[in-house]
Amino acid sequence: MNNFLKISDIDNLKSTIKEAIDLKDNPRKFKKLGENKTIVLLFFNASLRTRLSTQKAAINLGMDVVVMNFTNEGWQLEFEDGIVMNKNKSEHVKEAAKVISQYCDIVAIRAFASLTDKEKDEAEVVLNNFKKYANIPVVNMESATGHPLQALADAITIEEFKSTKKPKVVLSWAPHPKALPHAVANSFVEMMQLQDVNFVITHPKGYELNPKITKNSAIEYNQEKAFENADFVYVKNWSSYKNYGKVLNTDSKWMITADKMKLTNKGKFMHCLPVRRNVIVTDEVMDSENSIVIEQANNRTYAAQIVLKKILEQND
Amino acid sequence: MNNFLKISDIDNLKSTIKEAIDLKDNPRKFKKLGENKTIVLLFFNASLRTRLSTQKAAINLGMDVVVMNFTNEGWQLEFEDGIVMNKNKSEHVKEAAKVISQYCDIVAIRAFASLTDKEKDEAEVVLNNFKKYANIPVVNMESATGHPLQALADAITIEEFKSTKKPKVVLSWAPHPKALPHAVANSFVEMMQLQDVNFVITHPKGYELNPKITKNSAIEYNQEKAFENADFVYVKNWSSYKNYGKVLNTDSKWMITADKMKLTNKGKFMHCLPVRRNVIVTDEVMDSENSIVIEQANNRTYAAQIVLKKILEQND
Amino acid sequence: MNNFLKISDIDNLKSTIKEAIDLKDNPRKFKKLGENKTIVLLFFNASLRTRLSTQKAAINLGMDVVVMNFTNEGWQLEFEDGIVMNKNKSEHVKEAAKVISQYCDIVAIRAFASLTDKEKDEAEVVLNNFKKYANIPVVNMESATGHPLQALADAITIEEFKSTKKPKVVLSWAPHPKALPHAVANSFVEMMQLQDVNFVITHPKGYELNPKITKNSAIEYNQEKAFENADFVYVKNWSSYKNYGKVLNTDSKWMITADKMKLTNKGKFMHCLPVRRNVIVTDEVMDSENSIVIEQANNRTYAAQIVLKKILEQND
Repeated sequence: MNNFLKISDIDNLKSTIKEAIDLKDNPRKFKKLGENKTIVLLFFNASLRTRLSTQKAAINLGMDVVVMNFTNEGWQLEFEDGIVMNKNKSEHVKEAAKVISQYCDIVAIRAFASLTDKEKDEAEVVLNNFKKYANIPVVNMESATGHPLQALADAITIEEFKSTKKPKVVLSWAPHPKALPHAVANSFVEMMQLQDVNFVITHPKGYELNPKITKNSAIEYNQEKAFENADFVYVKNWSSYKNYGKVLNTDSKWMITADKMKLTNKGKFMHCLPVRRNVIVTDEVMDSENSIVIEQANNRTYAAQIVLKKILEQND
Repeated sequence: MNNFLKISDIDNLKSTIKEAIDLKDNPRKFKKLGENKTIVLLFFNASLRTRLSTQKAAINLGMDVVVMNFTNEGWQLEFEDGIVMNKNKSEHVKEAAKVISQYCDIVAIRAFASLTDKEKDEAEVVLNNFKKYANIPVVNMESATGHPLQALADAITIEEFKSTKKPKVVLSWAPHPKALPHAVANSFVEMMQLQDVNFVITHPKGYELNPKITKNSAIEYNQEKAFENADFVYVKNWSSYKNYGKVLNTDSKWMITADKMKLTNKGKFMHCLPVRRNVIVTDEVMDSENSIVIEQANNRTYAAQIVLKKILEQND
Repeated sequence: MNNFLKISDIDNLKSTIKEAIDLKDNPRKFKKLGENKTIVLLFFNASLRTRLSTQKAAINLGMDVVVMNFTNEGWQLEFEDGIVMNKNKSEHVKEAAKVISQYCDIVAIRAFASLTDKEKDEAEVVLNNFKKYANIPVVNMESATGHPLQALADAITIEEFKSTKKPKVVLSWAPHPKALPHAVANSFVEMMQLQDVNFVITHPKGYELNPKITKNSAIEYNQEKAFENADFVYVKNWSSYKNYGKVLNTDSKWMITADKMKLTNKGKFMHCLPVRRNVIVTDEVMDSENSIVIEQANNRTYAAQIVLKKILEQND
C-alpha cells in the first residue's frame, strides 16, 4: 500500500480484515517493522478515537510518533494554486507537504468537510494536495468525504460479530442538532458494497447521500421497515447533501429506540462515536448488550495498525 | 495499587515515601516494568509541573506516553446521566472512558474544581466518572478536591529535609488575586494527618477548609503565632469554602515575609508552585536558602513514578 | 557545547557543517548518545519546521522528546525581576526554568520578538532568563533577535550547493503584508560573515538591520545590481529596525521574479519558509529548478541534530 486515502487503496479487503483481527493476539508482534520510522499525525480538527488509536497503532509497530495540531501550532495553509498570498495564510501546502515529507516516513491527516463549499469538499483539497506534494505515504484520518479507517474498523467489527453468512446491515440516519459531514456514512456505504451483506440505507427524504456513492444500494425511507430482521444497525447523522450542509430537521422520530431495535434480528447497534445520547439513540439502546460501539472503537487501533503495517511493508 | 485517586489509595505510606526517595539513585532502574505499556495524560486544565514530571516518570519506567489536551483537542464531554445531549457536548464520559481504556494501560487526569458548583466539585464528577467507566487504572493529576501526587511529593520533601523526629509543619493561607481551588490544601492536610508531625493550619477567618477534611487538625487564626518554631511553612492560597469559591480578601498582611520566617525554627519554605512572587511570598523568602520549592517540585517526578510503578506491578 | 543560543556558541563552524552533512549518511548512527536523555521543546509561538525537525533530530539521537506549547498548556510567565505578581501572570521564569531543568536534560525554546518593545526584544528576555535560571543546556529555536539553527541549516545548504570556492551570496529583503521579526535575517548575516563568501545585503532604504549585526557587510540599495552574478539569493522579509517593528512599504517591486533571477549566475533561490508565494517571490521562481528551499528545510534536521549531538557529548 502506498497511500491510504480511500477504501479501494486496500488490495485484498477480505484478507486485510482477517489480518487485522489476527493482530489482536499479539499487537506488538511487528514492533521491528516500524523501528527508526516516524509517523506525523496532522490534525486540522478535533479527535479522540482517531488521535489515540492511530498513535497506539504506530506505537505497536515500533514507530516514533509526532502529533501536530496544525490549526493552532503551525501556520495557516493556502491550498489554491497561483494565488497572491497577501492575506492571512502564511504557507502554501506545496511547501508544507514537501517539507514534512523530509522529516517523517508517513503522514496521517484529519481535515473535515467545510459543509459550505461542496465543490471544494468533493475535491478533497487538503488530502489531495498533501497526496500531490508529499513524497511519503499519506493516510486519511477522516477527510471531507471519507473516513476509510473508520469503515475498515466497522468491517472488522461486523466480521467479528456476524452470526450468519450474509447478515442484513442497515445504515440509519438519526437526528442531531448540528450539521455533520458525510464522511463516515460515505465510507460505510462504500465498505458495505464490498462486503457479502444485505445492505439497506434508511433516512428521511432530503437526506440522500451522494448518488455516485450510494449507487445501487437499497434506500428505504421507512425506518421501521428497514430495521426488520436487521443483524446490524449502523447509525449516523449527516447533513443534507442536496441542500448541501443544511440541517433539514432534527426529528426525534428518527432516534434509535429499544422498540425499533425489537424489529431487528437481535441486531447489533453500531455507531462511530462520539454519539449524543437520547438524541441519536436512547440510553436504553446504548447500554444494552447488543450495543457494540465500544468494541467497534477498539477496532480503530487494529484498522490503523494493519494499514500502517502494509504501508511499512511496501516501503521496507 | 489499582487506582490513585486519593492519598488513602497508598497502602503503606511510610515505605512508599522511602521507595520514592530510593528511586532517585537510579531513576531508570525499572525501565523494563513499563515496556509495551501506554499511559495517556488527559488535561482539562493548564499544567507545567504535573505535565512534565508525570511524562518523565512514565518515561523513566519505560512506558509510551500519549498526551491529550482534552479541552481543545477532543470533544466536549457530558457527565450527567440520562440527559438529552442536544446542546454543546458531543460525547458522554461513559463512552470516552471506555474507549480510552482500550487504547491505553493507565489514564491520568487533571480536572480542576469549577468553584461555582460545590456539590458537583465535591462529587468529583470528572475523576469519578472516569473511574466508574474506565477499565484501566486511573491516576489523579489534580481533581476538584484533591491533588494527592502533590501531597506525596510534599511528604517526600519533608522526609528529606526534616532534622527532628517530629517537626512542626504549618500550612498557611496567603493572599492571591484570583479564586483558587482547595485541592492542594486539602491533600496536604490529609497527608500531614498521616505523618508524624506537629501540624497547624493558619488562615484568616472565613477561609476554613472543609471540616470533614481538617477534622481535628489544629487551626490557629494568628499567623505569627502559628509560625513560632515551625520547621516547615507550607504556603498556599485557596478561596473560601463556606462562601464557596469566593475571594474574601487579598490582604497583603498574610503574605509570607522574611520577618515572619524569623519566627520559625529556621523553617523551610514550601509551595506547590506556580507561586506569585510578592503577593503570596516576598522575593526575599523565595530566594532564601530556606526555600525548598525547587526541590519540592523535583519530587513530583518521584511521587508520580512510585505511584505508576505500584500500579504497573499490581497489573503486571 | 553547553548552550546553543547564538552562532558563536559553535566552536568550529567549518567542521560542524561537515559533520552535519555526514550525519545524512546514517542519521540514527548516534542513537545511543541520547539514550535515557529527555529534551523538552517549549513553544511560545507557532512552528512547523522547527517543531518537526527538532523532534526528528532528537529522535535520531535516541532521546525522549516532550513538547509543550507554553502559551495555552502552561501558565503565563513573568520575566521581570522584583515585580508584584498580582496581574495575569501566574509563574515567574525563575521557578519555571529551574523546575523544568529537573525534569529534562536539554530545553529548547522558541520565543519571537514582540516587535513593539525594542529594548526588551534586544535583551532576549525569554531566552536569557531561561539561560540564567535553567541548570541544563538551552537551545534557541528562534528568539527575538536570532535564529541560529536556521542559519546553520542555511550554511549547510550553501556548502552543499556551491559550485565555486567563494560564491556570491545576496540577502534580499522582500515585501510582506505583516510586520516580521529580524531574527532570521540577523542570524543569516552573522553566519555569512563567518563564511568564505562574497556577501551583499539588499533592501529598500529604511530597512537597514541593526548596524551592530551588519557591521562591515556590503549593503546595496539597488536590488538588481545586488543580484548580478549572485550564486545564492537568500530572501526574507523583515520589518523596519530603525522605525522598530513597522512595515514601511509592501512594494511589490521588491518581489523576487524570474527576470531578476536571470541577473544572477544561475543563482540558487533560498528562503527559510514559510514563504508567501507571489508576494515574496513568484510561483515561477519557487517552482524553478534553482529553488532549493525544500533541501534547505531538510537541513533543519541535521542542523538541530549536530547541535544536540555536541551538547550531549559535552554533558556525557
